[in-house]
Amino acid sequence: MEVLTSQPTIKKKFLEIRKHTEAICSSLQKDDFSVQPVAFVSPPKWHLGHTTWFFEQFVLSVYKEDYTLFSEDFAFYFNSYYNNVGERILRVNRGNMTRPTTDEVYKYRTYINHHLSEFLSNDVDQGILDLVEIGLQHEQQHQELLMYDIKYIFGNQPAFPVLDTTVELKPETTHDYLTIKEGLYEIGHKGKDFCFDNEQGLHKVYIHNCEISKSLVTNGEYLEFIEAGGYSNFNLWHADGWDWVQNNNIQAPMYWHRTEQGYKQYTLKGLKDLNKGLPVSHISFYEAWAFAEWKEMRLPTEFEWEVASKQLNYGQLWEWTNSAYLPYPKYQKAEGAIGEYNGKFMVNTMVMRGASIATPKDHSRPTYRNFFTPETRWQFSGIRLAK
Amino acid sequence: MEVLTSQPTIKKKFLEIRKHTEAICSSLQKDDFSVQPVAFVSPPKWHLGHTTWFFEQFVLSVYKEDYTLFSEDFAFYFNSYYNNVGERILRVNRGNMTRPTTDEVYKYRTYINHHLSEFLSNDVDQGILDLVEIGLQHEQQHQELLMYDIKYIFGNQPAFPVLDTTVELKPETTHDYLTIKEGLYEIGHKGKDFCFDNEQGLHKVYIHNCEISKSLVTNGEYLEFIEAGGYSNFNLWHADGWDWVQNNNIQAPMYWHRTEQGYKQYTLKGLKDLNKGLPVSHISFYEAWAFAEWKEMRLPTEFEWEVASKQLNYGQLWEWTNSAYLPYPKYQKAEGAIGEYNGKFMVNTMVMRGASIATPKDHSRPTYRNFFTPETRWQFSGIRLAK
Amino acid sequence: MEVLTSQPTIKKKFLEIRKHTEAICSSLQKDDFSVQPVAFVSPPKWHLGHTTWFFEQFVLSVYKEDYTLFSEDFAFYFNSYYNNVGERILRVNRGNMTRPTTDEVYKYRTYINHHLSEFLSNDVDQGILDLVEIGLQHEQQHQELLMYDIKYIFGNQPAFPVLDTTVELKPETTHDYLTIKEGLYEIGHKGKDFCFDNEQGLHKVYIHNCEISKSLVTNGEYLEFIEAGGYSNFNLWHADGWDWVQNNNIQAPMYWHRTEQGYKQYTLKGLKDLNKGLPVSHISFYEAWAFAEWKEMRLPTEFEWEVASKQLNYGQLWEWTNSAYLPYPKYQKAEGAIGEYNGKFMVNTMVMRGASIATPKDHSRPTYRNFFTPETRWQFSGIRLAK
Amino acid sequence: MEVLTSQPTIKKKFLEIRKHTEAICSSLQKDDFSVQPVAFVSPPKWHLGHTTWFFEQFVLSVYKEDYTLFSEDFAFYFNSYYNNVGERILRVNRGNMTRPTTDEVYKYRTYINHHLSEFLSNDVDQGILDLVEIGLQHEQQHQELLMYDIKYIFGNQPAFPVLDTTVELKPETTHDYLTIKEGLYEIGHKGKDFCFDNEQGLHKVYIHNCEISKSLVTNGEYLEFIEAGGYSNFNLWHADGWDWVQNNNIQAPMYWHRTEQGYKQYTLKGLKDLNKGLPVSHISFYEAWAFAEWKEMRLPTEFEWEVASKQLNYGQLWEWTNSAYLPYPKYQKAEGAIGEYNGKFMVNTMVMRGASIATPKDHSRPTYRNFFTPETRWQFSGIRLAK
Repeated sequence: MEVLTSQPTIKKKFLEIRKHTEAICSSLQKDDFSVQPVAFVSPPKWHLGHTTWFFEQFVLSVYKEDYTLFSEDFAFYFNSYYNNVGERILRVNRGNMTRPTTDEVYKYRTYINHHLSEFLSNDVDQGILDLVEIGLQHEQQHQELLMYDIKYIFGNQPAFPVLDTTVELKPETTHDYLTIKEGLYEIGHKGKDFCFDNEQGLHKVYIHNCEISKSLVTNGEYLEFIEAGGYSNFNLWHADGWDWVQNNNIQAPMYWHRTEQGYKQYTLKGLKDLNKGLPVSHISFYEAWAFAEWKEMRLPTEFEWEVASKQLNYGQLWEWTNSAYLPYPKYQKAEGAIGEYNGKFMVNTMVMRGASIATPKDHSRPTYRNFFTPETRWQFSGIRLAK
Repeated sequence: MEVLTSQPTIKKKFLEIRKHTEAICSSLQKDDFSVQPVAFVSPPKWHLGHTTWFFEQFVLSVYKEDYTLFSEDFAFYFNSYYNNVGERILRVNRGNMTRPTTDEVYKYRTYINHHLSEFLSNDVDQGILDLVEIGLQHEQQHQELLMYDIKYIFGNQPAFPVLDTTVELKPETTHDYLTIKEGLYEIGHKGKDFCFDNEQGLHKVYIHNCEISKSLVTNGEYLEFIEAGGYSNFNLWHADGWDWVQNNNIQAPMYWHRTEQGYKQYTLKGLKDLNKGLPVSHISFYEAWAFAEWKEMRLPTEFEWEVASKQLNYGQLWEWTNSAYLPYPKYQKAEGAIGEYNGKFMVNTMVMRGASIATPKDHSRPTYRNFFTPETRWQFSGIRLAK
Repeated sequence: MEVLTSQPTIKKKFLEIRKHTEAICSSLQKDDFSVQPVAFVSPPKWHLGHTTWFFEQFVLSVYKEDYTLFSEDFAFYFNSYYNNVGERILRVNRGNMTRPTTDEVYKYRTYINHHLSEFLSNDVDQGILDLVEIGLQHEQQHQELLMYDIKYIFGNQPAFPVLDTTVELKPETTHDYLTIKEGLYEIGHKGKDFCFDNEQGLHKVYIHNCEISKSLVTNGEYLEFIEAGGYSNFNLWHADGWDWVQNNNIQAPMYWHRTEQGYKQYTLKGLKDLNKGLPVSHISFYEAWAFAEWKEMRLPTEFEWEVASKQLNYGQLWEWTNSAYLPYPKYQKAEGAIGEYNGKFMVNTMVMRGASIATPKDHSRPTYRNFFTPETRWQFSGIRLAK
Repeated sequence: MEVLTSQPTIKKKFLEIRKHTEAICSSLQKDDFSVQPVAFVSPPKWHLGHTTWFFEQFVLSVYKEDYTLFSEDFAFYFNSYYNNVGERILRVNRGNMTRPTTDEVYKYRTYINHHLSEFLSNDVDQGILDLVEIGLQHEQQHQELLMYDIKYIFGNQPAFPVLDTTVELKPETTHDYLTIKEGLYEIGHKGKDFCFDNEQGLHKVYIHNCEISKSLVTNGEYLEFIEAGGYSNFNLWHADGWDWVQNNNIQAPMYWHRTEQGYKQYTLKGLKDLNKGLPVSHISFYEAWAFAEWKEMRLPTEFEWEVASKQLNYGQLWEWTNSAYLPYPKYQKAEGAIGEYNGKFMVNTMVMRGASIATPKDHSRPTYRNFFTPETRWQFSGIRLAK
């Protein structure tokens, strides 16, 4: 996580990123801020507070002289999963906290913005700048989560509210495959730019001959899978995937609605007719894998993906790989609370590579390792095939 | 449910009661309106909408000429449990509906107030006035539920917010017992005033000699029960009660907090030191029964209570009786959707008699039969003993 | 629970009843003895041991000089719900205890039979004879439970095994109603014969005019209810009953199987065509109540039933009443562990009156109060209507 | 799965392996055969039937002329998870099937043994011999599962029954580490002997420098981890592992019992004092990983393990690796029902390598890939460290 960004650049970036978080929420109503329809979705208010608390907890309260906490209680509300920094409300109860109010949380943001700007106006050590950088990367991750969560909150109400946003998928156009030549390749982050600990440890991986699609699977192609009975053919599914399909009565991607006029799809612009040319989205790993089985192909490994990445046109949707999320050789988790960021999730999760339309600019790298459990699909996920 | 209130009186009452509902919510923040911490608690916004929908559904849309629904969708949001009048959102999802917004719900209230006032300015049939009367009784019931739900929402947050209200318990002063003489008594509602179907059917009940306390059990007395190990002595409990204690690790009434400085109790005025002179509140039937066992007494039956009621000083807290909620002889449930009001709950519930400080004025009668499942205690409940 | 049976009679009765328990199990295979398909069903082996332990725990180990326990461990295995006499295995784990083996349990029975016979050969106090009497009543109750549990174990396997038994339902023949005249009646057990504590406390109940059917509802009549859509008409059901129907997808009585050749019914003689003339059996309280609603009648109260009992032809199936199981005025629960027998179940249960074909001879009285939660139906239950 | 074993050898092996399964069960009581204390444990009777059904389903009923099924119903009882070959009882209900009886299952075994022996007395195609070989490998896997399940059934009863067996752990003696030199290695099964599809596809893997322990972690070493607070230090655990510890209140390996005289451990020889020199067993992946964290080491990957295997003294306990169970490059699952054997489990599981004392002779290979979900620990599992 070595960073060499200059202090004025960091300060400018700080103010821009903080502003962008609020821009995402600009068209929300007060009622939209506190709700938590399922445990894995956090209320928008919570994201606004949590990203702010991160700077207060790890930077201001440690390094700024005479700094006064905005509120003694806020750590309790806005800690996510850092066991090392104390007690916190249960995740499932986030949606029950009507106080602090949304207005107070916005005041909290203003307070921290002011104090951190002031702090960055004087000289600070590179180590602290690195922490600020992590805080910004962290807030950008939550900007993406905010989009997922708002979409879930809106997409699970009969009113199907609309968000004011320019984020939108584009059609996939090509059907070509890229060839990767068998051999030893270097995997992992190079250079001095920011990256997370899980990308570090440049190492060699031997890759066998393979081909990888230049495009994502489209809604139209996925519809064929559905119509061919994909969701009722157990031979296409992992055992756990088949259980998931059966227990949850899954019959289509998330946000698809079967109507008498054909499938409709909830998007951030409301409920729309299914556009067959767009990439299929909100797909679980189980579905991606079953689709690949049906096509008699497979999902790429994260190593194949990384090697191919320079020639891939990615960035619409996070792409499921068939790689489990595991440490690279020589992986070292960071010391202290920051060490809880990545390593403790390296079991039961699968790697996603690429980026999505909800990913903030400058928050995407070919070596970026995103990860989710195989049944999740509220994230902006898609399918790329290999063979 | 025969009613002989005059039309001008009804109209005046309508406007007063509608206003009172909003008065209860006057000190809430926007964030407080949409939350549903447990399935049995409804968001305040929902109560505001549901009581309004009742008038639209059962009066305006049926009887007012050329009436235009405020919104086609609102029946879906604000129907509670009337299977006869169509689909509705699952109860557990009420807290996930960020739309309609609280602002829209207030507009809905204004719209219905306007139309119903207008409607009542012209002559209407007695049958319709009766429906309006039921709607008012219904809204008064929800005023009480609003108090329960706001208290639950506030009392289960670390911030322990305060509600602006004059509702407050008073100390219990007497320790006397009242004697009821063995014999045949008449039970049920007499006269022409409003009552629910479950109170009707005046009938004879033979009552055996008994004595009934003139006062409610106090926090101080209940504390003795706790300190004597009441919550760990299975002999005092129903089998189901003991399971409830064990499975939920119950050790005190709801809203009590054990601290190093002794017990504190959340009240609508915030977290306070336990006041031993006040009646013990937020007690389940299981706890009331176990306490009575420990005292080697018992809870009165609802018939004993009704016979004694003229001489009782009640109205602080709803009082658990040892009567299951069952139909009176000759009970007839009302026709149509209104028939779902009472009869279908006549199993697995116990009768509570009296009224509470949260009960609206004029919404209390000696024959009133309230009912709850035996483990509930978020309602304003208390204990009166008999022997 | 006053008893005046002579000692020789008791001893004879003891040996007969003990033998009868084993006779019920005579056609079971070893594999049938240890299984517990759901928590409320106990393995036959457990019934054999538990009824035996009752005599050891409450009689021999207390009153017989120099008595040596068969095994120190057996109390742990064979205590059911007597918190007062120590630790026991969790009910749900009864089916996991492969040891003691069935052979050992039979040895245990022989051992206790021998010691209790020997004990009863010498003069013992009336108080002890009373305890033996309770033990016999208890074993008779378990004889009936054994039939329920064996039927459940067999009826939920694809092999549908057959039990060697003479227990069999007979057709219902009459369609008459009996009239009860309004007035004060005495309810409760009279005389010196054995009864349970819940029947005691002779007291007056005022009964209003009613009619009560002389026969039970038949399979044929119940089939009409099904075919008229009874299971999909929410207006006929309690709210809790409707939830139960929906959550468990209930569409017919327990042990009915819809086939292309019409309904079949599992009986202890195997899977048979539905016999329309037999009384409908394995019915929950919810179903009994919904059926009565559909017929525009009601279930009798337990008091009406008791008053009518002399003129009723009962004993085929336990009959649901619309009375919740509550203490009679002046109810006193027994001292000590025996006090856990009845009183602690007096909430959330409904009273059944009569007896069933599985009830042992001499274990039936007009004042007998059986009780079950409203959704249970593995017991031999049926419907009698009133109006 | 290419096999070149001669037909007489196969036949001899068939009879030996079938006999060995029954030998494992020779000291069981009838009561022990039908029980299923948790869903993942199958009744011994079921293993006896299922392994037999495999030969009937995939060999005799397909290839033996005029073969008559032992019973039409048995496929329903004894199919495990082969969706391709029809309906089957729910796994959780295996323990509720009292019929067929254990006696009948033994008759089934005799019947199949007779018919398959007869079948193998005449010339059969190599393809069929391969199927028989798979059936034998399959039965050997179930021999090991039988040991796990019997241990679970016995170890979760207060009687702690003893199994007559020679299977026993030996102390670990060395503390040395083996060095693996960085470079490209070949991974996967070579040669003509039997192996499963998941081992096939010889391919190159680049391995970085590492050291791997020559011995397993002992009870003594693990006890130090416990005493150092390992189970209460969240920093040592995966997030999912920590949830597992908290939700299940895990404080020691499975079968350890904390007593006033120190830890005891249930073994197949009964409850014994903890032997510190023996390898720690019945360890989940989460525990293995946390222990490695505490030691500031790590678990080996399955590739490191395979490369080191020639120099490892393994075979006491299956060893957790830090490799997720994923397909090798060019993995092809078998056609038809046999294809359900492995591939569909390649998500959410971790690879175990080696073998255990419960593994049948000749059922162990350096390339063998066993796999379990990370919380399971009823299998004979242990820990080997790497750095």
